[in-house]
Amino acid sequence: MLESAEIGHKVPKQVYAREEPKLRELLLNAQFDLSQSGRGPLLLVISGVEGGGRGETANKLTEWMDPRHIHVVAFGARVPEEAARPRAWRYWRSLPPKGKIGILMNAWYNEAMLAHVQGKIDVDQVNTRVQAIREHEQMLTDEGFVLLKFWIHLSKAAQKQRLQELERDPTTAWRVTREDWKAYRIYNKAHELWECLLRETSTGVAPWHVVEGADGRYRYLTVGKILLESLRATLAPRPATPKHAITPPAPSVIDNVKLIRDLDLSKRLPVKAYDHELEKHQGKLATLTRHKRFAKRSLILVFEGVDAAGKGGAIRRVTGALDARQYVTVPVAAPTEEERAFPYLWRFWRNVPRYGGVTIFDRSWYGRVLVERVEGYCSVYDWMRAYDEINQFEEQLTRGNAVVVKFWLQISKAEQLRRFRARERSPFKRFKITADDWRNRKKWNAYEQAVCDMVDRTSTEIAPWTLVEAEDKYYARIKVLQTIADRVKRALAR
Amino acid sequence: MLESAEIGHKVPKQVYAREEPKLRELLLNAQFDLSQSGRGPLLLVISGVEGGGRGETANKLTEWMDPRHIHVVAFGARVPEEAARPRAWRYWRSLPPKGKIGILMNAWYNEAMLAHVQGKIDVDQVNTRVQAIREHEQMLTDEGFVLLKFWIHLSKAAQKQRLQELERDPTTAWRVTREDWKAYRIYNKAHELWECLLRETSTGVAPWHVVEGADGRYRYLTVGKILLESLRATLAPRPATPKHAITPPAPSVIDNVKLIRDLDLSKRLPVKAYDHELEKHQGKLATLTRHKRFAKRSLILVFEGVDAAGKGGAIRRVTGALDARQYVTVPVAAPTEEERAFPYLWRFWRNVPRYGGVTIFDRSWYGRVLVERVEGYCSVYDWMRAYDEINQFEEQLTRGNAVVVKFWLQISKAEQLRRFRARERSPFKRFKITADDWRNRKKWNAYEQAVCDMVDRTSTEIAPWTLVEAEDKYYARIKVLQTIADRVKRALAR
Repeated sequence: MLESAEIGHKVPKQVYAREEPKLRELLLNAQFDLSQSGRGPLLLVISGVEGGGRGETANKLTEWMDPRHIHVVAFGARVPEEAARPRAWRYWRSLPPKGKIGILMNAWYNEAMLAHVQGKIDVDQVNTRVQAIREHEQMLTDEGFVLLKFWIHLSKAAQKQRLQELERDPTTAWRVTREDWKAYRIYNKAHELWECLLRETSTGVAPWHVVEGADGRYRYLTVGKILLESLRATLAPRPATPKHAITPPAPSVIDNVKLIRDLDLSKRLPVKAYDHELEKHQGKLATLTRHKRFAKRSLILVFEGVDAAGKGGAIRRVTGALDARQYVTVPVAAPTEEERAFPYLWRFWRNVPRYGGVTIFDRSWYGRVLVERVEGYCSVYDWMRAYDEINQFEEQLTRGNAVVVKFWLQISKAEQLRRFRARERSPFKRFKITADDWRNRKKWNAYEQAVCDMVDRTSTEIAPWTLVEAEDKYYARIKVLQTIADRVKRALAR
Repeated sequence: MLESAEIGHKVPKQVYAREEPKLRELLLNAQFDLSQSGRGPLLLVISGVEGGGRGETANKLTEWMDPRHIHVVAFGARVPEEAARPRAWRYWRSLPPKGKIGILMNAWYNEAMLAHVQGKIDVDQVNTRVQAIREHEQMLTDEGFVLLKFWIHLSKAAQKQRLQELERDPTTAWRVTREDWKAYRIYNKAHELWECLLRETSTGVAPWHVVEGADGRYRYLTVGKILLESLRATLAPRPATPKHAITPPAPSVIDNVKLIRDLDLSKRLPVKAYDHELEKHQGKLATLTRHKRFAKRSLILVFEGVDAAGKGGAIRRVTGALDARQYVTVPVAAPTEEERAFPYLWRFWRNVPRYGGVTIFDRSWYGRVLVERVEGYCSVYDWMRAYDEINQFEEQLTRGNAVVVKFWLQISKAEQLRRFRARERSPFKRFKITADDWRNRKKWNAYEQAVCDMVDRTSTEIAPWTLVEAEDKYYARIKVLQTIADRVKRALAR
């Protein structure tokens, strides 16, 4: 892939002088149309060889276009707030919203390459990262992103020449760093890795464009034209039929609602025992989350459940054991306008705790495969792909030292009715019961099916679901506390 | 102030059982009305004595009310991302938007107290912090915040009793930490400091409410009732006349537009010299921002200027010298809906760089005293108070190790016309010229007055304005680069 970018492409000065203003105008207009269309966003990944002109290229694009709608982010060694969270966190933070253009310098590529060159990860680990990159880029595309990946290339001779030229002039010598020469020395070794990485991550939805970097004019025009083409394709009218008109698959397990129907909802805890058990388990959790080894861990709790199953009460018993400085509770409702301009997992990434922290999600990303599925807020393709995306998300969290504990709180239909009625009678619980709740209740069976599919497809070894028999709230709260304490204890013991 | 909260207030069980449901209902309704009104927000500061029940009180309020519209944040020792930024940064991050209720545990109070008790800051430094707190709370109130500050108090005897009770029961013993007993031992010493701090920060806009903490029922009902009263006052209909109907003061300096009119706009730099000067000064800035001492500093650049004065071009010459990983450029336009729900400085605090970082504001918080003043987007009182608020803001940045460099780029009215016309003719600069620009041009004199007031009132020793003669763009760019390099150099030498 790289050889065609080592042959010395050049654009003469006059040609550039003629073409640049035209290209610039077209780019500006297309950028404006994009910002109005709400499509995209366009995400440019600019990676490549040291000294090839990656930075100059990004600067040129921002100079050509309206700086309010284009944003460049570069990644270096992880700063403390990044190092205390899963690796992908900083990339999620840097995604542009719909209608905009984002340029990520190196993005998620150089981290893996650098780690390999430095001998920190072996080939298998590189492959694991490559697989994760492919899945991530597939997800972005499914969420409407247009990915443009540029590899700015130089032959070894051209790299040497470039660095020497810069060094010779005392006013530009500062541009050459020790890192640049280090990169030059391992050129041959790295070349093989680049080839492999480019090949493995050149997918249908996100192919690489290899651009020779030696001649600035050639580089600018080439990148600019590809960008223009891509902007136009993004803005082109689309057929009215959805891109992915697929039918829902058969459930993976026949009669899989058994999972929920077989729960023994008669489980009870006597009130007398409750107070004692509560203090005991809160004490355990309190001790564990204040343990010095927890400072390198984080805890992510997911509470899902039937309406009125007692999520709020259970959450308060958990937070009662935590230091107020270490946790946040995130109530999840319909996404805001800002959140809708990003992939659906974005707002959850935003709330990923740092080491030593706890985030409690009162409802969560599982809305995608529950309410969004049942109410038809997203296409079948969208919620079907969500299972894998969610599993990948939770794997990334877990690899980033998080303990992920997920609860489904279940009550019977009769008990729900009783609680709804009681809420309507209570002056200060009325706000908890809305027309939505009654509507959801009518779809009890559809939700039951969705829940069972969800548990079936996303109960992984690293992040299993815990089904909680919540007919008796005391029993439920203790089971929740006990489960969390067990999971944290096991994680700290590792 | 504290003695009245050491006498043993109590609420009998039956009274509580009767009053709690009523209070809860009224609170819920008022909270709902607040969320609909877009007023506020309400900010509760809950501080006080260890073991007094601060955390329990916050939990009770979130249990009583709708958790979607109330949010608790607690502050401990600063984590790395907080420690690498000015002290106030984490408090700004935690402010609730309009319509919501925020609870800040300890907020900005305990940090100063702790530092003093530990002997890290003397009485004068405490006073400086107190002054900053008063100004900050005044600003919040002016921005629509309703501040409710609760000091949950215990007598020394009651504190001891509370800690002992908890320790005696093996299931609650974990709630008592070494810090609690440490706090008990310095009770007498701290008592004096509390009195002083409460007195000095009990202002008309933000008085303290001292609440005895020993009896939970008394504590909950007292805090709840004060909160309810405050919610009602916030929601009460308001007179149509603005709160602060004041007339603009006379300019502080007669004929102060001289400042700008006297600029020598004939200053030029020959094109031949430019390229060399550019590389030289970029090199200097590059070396400085890569210096190891810069890792404990940050750089904040503010670019303001007449329309078409060449801010964008100057900014690109600055970024050309910086490592792409260390800077962000923030183009400032009209605030978004989300941003309008916060005080006007909020969106700038959001972009304060960490140590080692650079933020470049293309337009800035000075919009408050420029466009907002001239166009009448805010009241006279609002832009008049902004001068002080901005000076305080920049002082906080500077104390947080930031170097703040502010530029005003000036061109003549004739040159502006020439550039506007040239932009209209250029296919790729057309987007830079809008009806707004022509409208602003008509208000040339009003802007000139606003600029001169701004420079006069906000050119401080720590963050002086640099007026840049920008008729010749080469001269302007070099002056900008040179000024930044000088300021950074001086900062690193200290």
